[in-house]
Amino acid sequence: MPLARLKGFEKLTGVDDALRLFLKELKPAKLGVDCVPISEALERVVAENVVALGDLPSFDRSAMDGFAVRASDTFEASQFKSRLLKLTEKEIVNEGEASQVWTGGMLPEGADAVVMLEHTRKVNGEIEVLAAVTPGENVSKRGEDIRKKEVVVKAGVRLQPQHLGLLAGLGITHINVARKPKVAILSTGNELVELGQKPEPGQVVSVNQLILSAMCRQLGAETVNLGIARDNLNEISGKIADGLRQADAVVTTGGTSVGYADLVSIVVSKLGKPGVIVHGIAMRPAMPTALAIVRGKPVFILSGYPVASLFGFEVFVRPTILRLLGIEHEPRPMLKAKLTRRVASALGRRVYLRVYVLQKEGEFFAEPIRTKGSGVLSTMTKANGYVVIPEDREGLEEGETVIVHLFDRIGGT
Amino acid sequence: MPLARLKGFEKLTGVDDALRLFLKELKPAKLGVDCVPISEALERVVAENVVALGDLPSFDRSAMDGFAVRASDTFEASQFKSRLLKLTEKEIVNEGEASQVWTGGMLPEGADAVVMLEHTRKVNGEIEVLAAVTPGENVSKRGEDIRKKEVVVKAGVRLQPQHLGLLAGLGITHINVARKPKVAILSTGNELVELGQKPEPGQVVSVNQLILSAMCRQLGAETVNLGIARDNLNEISGKIADGLRQADAVVTTGGTSVGYADLVSIVVSKLGKPGVIVHGIAMRPAMPTALAIVRGKPVFILSGYPVASLFGFEVFVRPTILRLLGIEHEPRPMLKAKLTRRVASALGRRVYLRVYVLQKEGEFFAEPIRTKGSGVLSTMTKANGYVVIPEDREGLEEGETVIVHLFDRIGGT
Repeated sequence: MPLARLKGFEKLTGVDDALRLFLKELKPAKLGVDCVPISEALERVVAENVVALGDLPSFDRSAMDGFAVRASDTFEASQFKSRLLKLTEKEIVNEGEASQVWTGGMLPEGADAVVMLEHTRKVNGEIEVLAAVTPGENVSKRGEDIRKKEVVVKAGVRLQPQHLGLLAGLGITHINVARKPKVAILSTGNELVELGQKPEPGQVVSVNQLILSAMCRQLGAETVNLGIARDNLNEISGKIADGLRQADAVVTTGGTSVGYADLVSIVVSKLGKPGVIVHGIAMRPAMPTALAIVRGKPVFILSGYPVASLFGFEVFVRPTILRLLGIEHEPRPMLKAKLTRRVASALGRRVYLRVYVLQKEGEFFAEPIRTKGSGVLSTMTKANGYVVIPEDREGLEEGETVIVHLFDRIGGT
Repeated sequence: MPLARLKGFEKLTGVDDALRLFLKELKPAKLGVDCVPISEALERVVAENVVALGDLPSFDRSAMDGFAVRASDTFEASQFKSRLLKLTEKEIVNEGEASQVWTGGMLPEGADAVVMLEHTRKVNGEIEVLAAVTPGENVSKRGEDIRKKEVVVKAGVRLQPQHLGLLAGLGITHINVARKPKVAILSTGNELVELGQKPEPGQVVSVNQLILSAMCRQLGAETVNLGIARDNLNEISGKIADGLRQADAVVTTGGTSVGYADLVSIVVSKLGKPGVIVHGIAMRPAMPTALAIVRGKPVFILSGYPVASLFGFEVFVRPTILRLLGIEHEPRPMLKAKLTRRVASALGRRVYLRVYVLQKEGEFFAEPIRTKGSGVLSTMTKANGYVVIPEDREGLEEGETVIVHLFDRIGGT
């Protein structure tokens, strides 16, 4: 096996610089559009601004159960001095008339207000009004929710239930959403076996495939499973080339540490221009991450360590997928919490500290998870979020307020 | 049309009391178990504690690329005084020997530490060690991640990518998860037409079906679409009875306001015991919500107003679905934010205030959305979270710190 580089990385690139360099070179373009029924559009990303073709509601509606009237007919009415109005069933309310309406029902022509049922009495086909109403009272005006030509949902929005409701209300049955990016995932390493196979001594089950493809799906991407490649130039090269044919992006894990063969980055740079853009990031975990571009498609060369590959994905793959989907800004849910103990960190590295956030008597606390290295996946299942320790800090203090990025539910006591 | 109750609710029940009364009567039991491959288990809820059948890793592994050695052989080594070790390719490392290992590879018998590649030089088939290592250094010990018999994932956990990885690492290919609850959804109202139909004047497109079924799916429930029922006892009764046959829970919208006919709650109480448990909640929006149980199955009778039905779902349906899934505690993501302006609220009601949260210079601000009633769905698409104003407050102050429950992504500037 060739020992390409035996020394440590000569220079580590800062996280922000690495991502900026990479995205500048990649110029990720949106991937085209799917037109889907809105019943299937939950969590899809809107491809272009949706403009209302009409008002919502499309007519003046009653906001209450009661009687549609001309407000001026009620001005003198009170519980001490009722006003009698003639009950009409015609589609027009004239002076001195009232027409029964239900919540959400159309206001008849001529009427401009609704007297609540509770403020009326029915007396021999006449309506006794016991309270005055002002024009517009208890009426939802046409266009109150959305006005014609208004932008209802903007491009880049990930559709939530309430967006779907609004689109439906406007009679919109289909919507153009960003096509799902396809991400091909390859695990490399002689020691790996597929899930379901029994590992021999010295072998381990490949876990990154499953983790990273689940992370892709949570973002709304599809995945192509390229399986496992041995630590062999031809095998790795063939599988990555296959991934580049089938997918919009390729993610590999393993074979990135310096001193090892650096096989994957060698292979990728041979597959096409411009090849590896950055290798070695001033971060922890995931320092040996490499970012490459082959003929316009991104290739992410992540560590084989599960926690390191996970953070490599979080920091570099996630924002790239969001760009491909046309999303400008989609932070994970975050919150401020008090750190429950001091943690040390290395100056000059951006550290992603795993924490468990819980709510106790209305306050949020972040408990740092004791980590033993980036191979220990249970530190991720014990955590529900992470805190970013900046490059210019040597650690965080006990009791310090930190911003936690959540990847699982908040705990409680 | 019968006018069952013309007066307002005689007594409103508090939110906490209503939910407690209802759940006490319902005694929601878990719904049984599906055994699924872990590749399909993302976001499913674990049905029973998963226990490790072996250690992870299952053998001592090298945490670095380098040479496996006996630490005692290196104690005197330094960059000024190297120690020469004999390179061996046997599966055992004896005194004075070193064996090449790669990250993740099994430590050979006899070795108890790894010298990093960077701290060695290869000299004529011998290894010059330039740094001392202590026993265990650069070694991931067997069981370091998970120990045999340890609980790996607890019942009630909604599986995230990292959980799937850990299960895979332990060789677990399938997992028992809670069966997806089935929720049947019925919209009632003479004014409603299905999405795709052109509404006549006075008609509106039914939107609640789409909103509530999307909310169900986000929780991991399946839905049965019962369509639209006219305001007619037999039609409503038939469809709810159908829902009760097919599903674990029924949700209806419309026909709950007092003064109107209260048709749905009349129908539900006739369908079986114990019928309506609570009707009229001291909350805003969603005051006319009713909670019922028919032969052990929950029936949620929500307002026809989209925003009110959405909050009725949030406050009553959501926790019930979580119980059916076996989840004790799954709050939405939340955070503390500063309210940007004063809001008034009614004493004695719990108010769900829609807000838009954004992050500005590291601080979180919550901007109350100006609402015009619970029919205006665009107030929900403009918001990304809500704040609960307690019953004993008459409002919230400008600059006050509030807890926001997030239902969409945080904005930024």
